[in-house]
Amino acid sequence: MEKRFTANPIITKADLEPSRSDWQIDCVMNPGAFTFDGKIWLLLRVAERPIQKKGKISLPIYTVDGDVHIIEFDENDSSWDTSDPRKFLHDGSTYLSTISHLRLVCSEDGIHFDKPDDIPDILSSQGIYETYGIEDCRVSQIENQYYLTYTQVSELGVGVGMRTTKDWINFVKTDMIFLPHNKDCALFEETINGQYFALNRPSGVGLGGNFIWLSSSPDLYHWGNHHCLMMTREGMWDSERVGAGTSPIKTEDGWLMIYHGADQDSRYCLGAALLDLNNPTKVIARSVKPLMEPEAPYEKEGFFKKVIFTNGHIVQGDRVTVYYGAADEVICGATFSIEEILESILTESLAE
Amino acid sequence: MEKRFTANPIITKADLEPSRSDWQIDCVMNPGAFTFDGKIWLLLRVAERPIQKKGKISLPIYTVDGDVHIIEFDENDSSWDTSDPRKFLHDGSTYLSTISHLRLVCSEDGIHFDKPDDIPDILSSQGIYETYGIEDCRVSQIENQYYLTYTQVSELGVGVGMRTTKDWINFVKTDMIFLPHNKDCALFEETINGQYFALNRPSGVGLGGNFIWLSSSPDLYHWGNHHCLMMTREGMWDSERVGAGTSPIKTEDGWLMIYHGADQDSRYCLGAALLDLNNPTKVIARSVKPLMEPEAPYEKEGFFKKVIFTNGHIVQGDRVTVYYGAADEVICGATFSIEEILESILTESLAE
Repeated sequence: MEKRFTANPIITKADLEPSRSDWQIDCVMNPGAFTFDGKIWLLLRVAERPIQKKGKISLPIYTVDGDVHIIEFDENDSSWDTSDPRKFLHDGSTYLSTISHLRLVCSEDGIHFDKPDDIPDILSSQGIYETYGIEDCRVSQIENQYYLTYTQVSELGVGVGMRTTKDWINFVKTDMIFLPHNKDCALFEETINGQYFALNRPSGVGLGGNFIWLSSSPDLYHWGNHHCLMMTREGMWDSERVGAGTSPIKTEDGWLMIYHGADQDSRYCLGAALLDLNNPTKVIARSVKPLMEPEAPYEKEGFFKKVIFTNGHIVQGDRVTVYYGAADEVICGATFSIEEILESILTESLAE
Repeated sequence: MEKRFTANPIITKADLEPSRSDWQIDCVMNPGAFTFDGKIWLLLRVAERPIQKKGKISLPIYTVDGDVHIIEFDENDSSWDTSDPRKFLHDGSTYLSTISHLRLVCSEDGIHFDKPDDIPDILSSQGIYETYGIEDCRVSQIENQYYLTYTQVSELGVGVGMRTTKDWINFVKTDMIFLPHNKDCALFEETINGQYFALNRPSGVGLGGNFIWLSSSPDLYHWGNHHCLMMTREGMWDSERVGAGTSPIKTEDGWLMIYHGADQDSRYCLGAALLDLNNPTKVIARSVKPLMEPEAPYEKEGFFKKVIFTNGHIVQGDRVTVYYGAADEVICGATFSIEEILESILTESLAE
């Protein structure tokens, strides 16, 4: 159903400069996507660490003042558990192997992206809730304002931060909008019955799981009326974790949301679900089979194997271009027909 | 500093009838406290399970329809981990050993409590977020309305629910106000700069911890502006988890909050902190030593040993009567002088 860009991967770490001369980029992934000034823009997640010395592993942490503290250890130091390339465990604590910032690139055709000419391209961590970086930003447009909802990571936890902008030069950073542990926050781009809505993904301790919840707000800053929208499904492709992509697409049949699901082997696929137009707490249909799964070489091999993760898409008529991170390392694109997605999930739901 | 009631424990399971004839009460604990109709009231947490058969362990789960499903297993069944008496682990899932409801009792003197004459005394689980029970209710009074903020437990997670009442006969149940994983929600009983405030305790997965956060709201239903207020302190009595008691006490020096802290051995003590009157995100002082620790036999021995846990107090002039659950099994009381608490934490903070 999907058509991958023949140019995939469209952005890799070789295309970007590290933010500091003594650092290296390890991964470029999980872009937010939006249109602005007649162009298509991506807000990339760029994961960096100090240039690694032979036999050593080093990882960076921002201080509250914006300085960087480097932790270095011997690669054979058995007190560090480095089995998951994304995060290391040591002495009961969790450390990220890289630190992420956000990077703007723009394009005329949606395939070839360049650094913007006339605006700063880097958005970095600010304050105590972002000392381990900022990640996986969704960009939503509500009236004439852009809302950036992203993951804030620090030793205080993993929560959802927000910044707003109209011109991509001046930003207003708001306080944390979803408490830890939460991520994958996607705003609806219009109100329903006078309320704003957001998909989000709290994670449970003990009871509960990695489920998608739906919350509502009178003002986009204060959230309540929390409903569990979609659980993981045992034995299926989304058995271990699910999380929203970006803003749901309004269709005549309902709100179409694209989401990621991962199984016990941390294989990340994309699926879709349809929510009732007037009452988005109601799930009308949901992918039984994945919409798209890691099949291309750049999706199956890389920093973290077998991952397709999206938090940005561009809608043009019936066509949705899904931008995604592949194998947690590169940026790719694929196009879908919205009608085909709807038909497939509605048919699957009828067949169940 | 504290004066325990000589009558402690003031309520035990022997004082109450189980909610069903084939069930037994295992614990009566963690009461909310309030004044109403000229009396002092407690809203107890009553933890029950089916009457246990010899050689078997059984535990109850409410269904969404309000029915009960019983899970029974052999006490020697090694596939069940029952080492923590509060929750059992089986096949990757967590089950509570008991299910809790809330129970009203009232008193003229604040020491001898009885079942109320003329109103229903049991508040039970309602809906899909409370199928494993409701727990540890704080009762706050804002203008002429009572706000019950309590822990909702289900397979969907552990979140904060709210019910409101004016007369303790008619209740309005709102949607979940804090997403999983969250508990220990204590409302401020008046607005500050036009906003409502709530202490709450999200728990981290990986990064983060069991810290007290402060959130604000325009309406008590939607919450945002989340700030991490108090972390755990390594090597101290509150090294593993902290959580608010009930509504902070307004004093000339600031908002006095009583909280619980637990260490690595799950020993629960009480402490206090003082928050700035106009900006409660600012912690002015905090107990270095616990305000009160498990010392009495009924605090050191019981369903879960060495626990003092409060979510209810009554303020009368300089005296605060703290009601608390002891050893997760019985209800006790102790009185403090507010001035003495303030003096002790301000002196400790100066000495640091």
